[in-house]
Amino acid sequence: MADEPVVQPIEYEDASDEVRAVYDDIKESRGIDWVNNFWKVLAHDPELLRRTWSDIKHVMGPGALDPLVKEMIYIAVSATNGCEYCTYSHTAAARAKGMTDAQLMEVLAVVGMANETNRLSNGLRPPVDVQFKPR
Amino acid sequence: MADEPVVQPIEYEDASDEVRAVYDDIKESRGIDWVNNFWKVLAHDPELLRRTWSDIKHVMGPGALDPLVKEMIYIAVSATNGCEYCTYSHTAAARAKGMTDAQLMEVLAVVGMANETNRLSNGLRPPVDVQFKPR
Amino acid sequence: MADEPVVQPIEYEDASDEVRAVYDDIKESRGIDWVNNFWKVLAHDPELLRRTWSDIKHVMGPGALDPLVKEMIYIAVSATNGCEYCTYSHTAAARAKGMTDAQLMEVLAVVGMANETNRLSNGLRPPVDVQFKPR
Amino acid sequence: MADEPVVQPIEYEDASDEVRAVYDDIKESRGIDWVNNFWKVLAHDPELLRRTWSDIKHVMGPGALDPLVKEMIYIAVSATNGCEYCTYSHTAAARAKGMTDAQLMEVLAVVGMANETNRLSNGLRPPVDVQFKPR
Amino acid sequence: MADEPVVQPIEYEDASDEVRAVYDDIKESRGIDWVNNFWKVLAHDPELLRRTWSDIKHVMGPGALDPLVKEMIYIAVSATNGCEYCTYSHTAAARAKGMTDAQLMEVLAVVGMANETNRLSNGLRPPVDVQFKPR
Amino acid sequence: MADEPVVQPIEYEDASDEVRAVYDDIKESRGIDWVNNFWKVLAHDPELLRRTWSDIKHVMGPGALDPLVKEMIYIAVSATNGCEYCTYSHTAAARAKGMTDAQLMEVLAVVGMANETNRLSNGLRPPVDVQFKPR
Repeated sequence: MADEPVVQPIEYEDASDEVRAVYDDIKESRGIDWVNNFWKVLAHDPELLRRTWSDIKHVMGPGALDPLVKEMIYIAVSATNGCEYCTYSHTAAARAKGMTDAQLMEVLAVVGMANETNRLSNGLRPPVDVQFKPR
Repeated sequence: MADEPVVQPIEYEDASDEVRAVYDDIKESRGIDWVNNFWKVLAHDPELLRRTWSDIKHVMGPGALDPLVKEMIYIAVSATNGCEYCTYSHTAAARAKGMTDAQLMEVLAVVGMANETNRLSNGLRPPVDVQFKPR
Repeated sequence: MADEPVVQPIEYEDASDEVRAVYDDIKESRGIDWVNNFWKVLAHDPELLRRTWSDIKHVMGPGALDPLVKEMIYIAVSATNGCEYCTYSHTAAARAKGMTDAQLMEVLAVVGMANETNRLSNGLRPPVDVQFKPR
Repeated sequence: MADEPVVQPIEYEDASDEVRAVYDDIKESRGIDWVNNFWKVLAHDPELLRRTWSDIKHVMGPGALDPLVKEMIYIAVSATNGCEYCTYSHTAAARAKGMTDAQLMEVLAVVGMANETNRLSNGLRPPVDVQFKPR
Repeated sequence: MADEPVVQPIEYEDASDEVRAVYDDIKESRGIDWVNNFWKVLAHDPELLRRTWSDIKHVMGPGALDPLVKEMIYIAVSATNGCEYCTYSHTAAARAKGMTDAQLMEVLAVVGMANETNRLSNGLRPPVDVQFKPR
Repeated sequence: MADEPVVQPIEYEDASDEVRAVYDDIKESRGIDWVNNFWKVLAHDPELLRRTWSDIKHVMGPGALDPLVKEMIYIAVSATNGCEYCTYSHTAAARAKGMTDAQLMEVLAVVGMANETNRLSNGLRPPVDVQFKPR
């Protein structure tokens, strides 16, 4: 197992002004005084960093869904894909937004069932019922 | 493209008493008068049918999470896995529970972002920050 | 890399009677005197623990397929999904049921080929031959 | 839905001698008088066609595992990945080798469980037990 | 099989000014007089439409990599994920940028190999060699 | 986390002549004096080792695509599948062939976008436009 990232995280003191501006916005938006490693590796491409942060901030913010629900959906996708970093970071984010252990376990129970029935469907290929077709 | 299922759906009139009992429970629990094809193909293994329905009924029912939130998580997993039948059936189920088009679009916006950042993480492998480690 | 689980495993001495009953059944059914960590983390949701163990015990037990064949299928799915814990635990389970290294290598040779041809099909999209359509 | 392949299948009468030799070997090895569309689209790259057929013939033939077991593993991977063509073709191949409907349903029951527990593991990240570590 | 989209495509004549502005930019940037269905379904969330188009235009445009190479990477991901729409649309896009059938077949040969060896690695778990660790 | 492989790597001094011949060819073809662990675990099945190396050597060598482009496609698939070993080994291989950090970041930006839009398509299911259908 390799504990080292594929590219080294860029720390604040070594960052360009463009990158620092994103780091500052991350800290301010979240009301915390540190930046997590995901952003520090993205910083090797300042435009990718800026765009991804801007998209995440927009998508995960208030909208038609509750922000905690969005974090739970993020956990569901990350567990389905087996993304380790994402599982830890979004579980932490959901907990910071109030997710209880009971809620986490229930998210995963649904994720498990969905992955199971997805494969039963893929293997047996039932026709899509006319009742399910969009208006 | 093959429109035919891998095994033929078993209709109520051709079903064993064991299978009919599950079909009856599905209809009663959902307050509808039909059974969707997923259950009709599972009926080739009555025990798999019984167990899967029992699990789904339990997991998707009331608990620590709102039933509509659970349907949205189901959509998120199904879209991530590319399961066509599941996408149609759970989108229909979520709409029946009140999901608006604005909410559906926002679920998918989160699913899209999560799939994007999952791969940025998988490719760059940032170390999991100590702050994210569980207590 | 984070060596810590997302929720702490619940040991026998800290478990409720409901959880202990499942742990006892796992040990008795398998004829061993310990419980692996997968069940100890599921124990945070006793109903999820009970249901998952009951399903696994039923599905992986004697039936239309040999139990060792089922463990090989489990390895195939786990390697395809990249689930680390599942790969180790089900490879160990298959070896305990008599799988040789030659058989393991052959399982993976098939898994490799299937993943390769799955993507050649997905990319080139040949029509499903009428001869393959179910009766 | 697009019923057309991404590249047109190459029929025997339009094929080069190199491609025809593979088609002939497929028919002879399988004791049938037709070639399925997967090979006919691969034929756009005769070397890829030759190599893939040679690999499949070798991997799926007699060895440490029963050929029917290998077809079941192929179905398991194809259902997990959601490959439609592969699901139909390998279910047909397994049936031709004697797979019953009861066995097919049991393969999928295992595939479903494996996909479910893979995600419970990915979301909760239990440490790999020392007992599971290879000698 | 359901040929109908989950939400109806929004045609130009029914679109808001905000959506029309994106449609116009798609047509102008690509030098064509039509908009493909992907954008027309995204239009149910004008902000998602605007953001996704802006990101795609930026990411797929000139940079450190050749635009045709980027389209090939897009095909590789889409075939790996089994996304039907994406496979057709990006294969068409790559052909419009000059991809030959020989190149397409070679992309898929690499995709096939990568999916095969990914699973051999996932199943056998060789330690990452020190020589591969980033500087 | 388990740092140990599922089967022990077979070192040159413990290898059969058949396996040594492949190791020698790997070293000679690559102009290096070591063999990476992937091949050393495959060596438990000499025929799988021989075949996989022969396929990789052929597929990744000169052809219709530049060898560096092929390595980038390999990274794209490996990051999509979350294969850790493959991500490290093929990123190292691509760097050895001249890939810059800017190119790596751009590969991943495309991979991220493709995974995002694959899921937007899977969830919304736009019909494949007639313009995208192959001739």
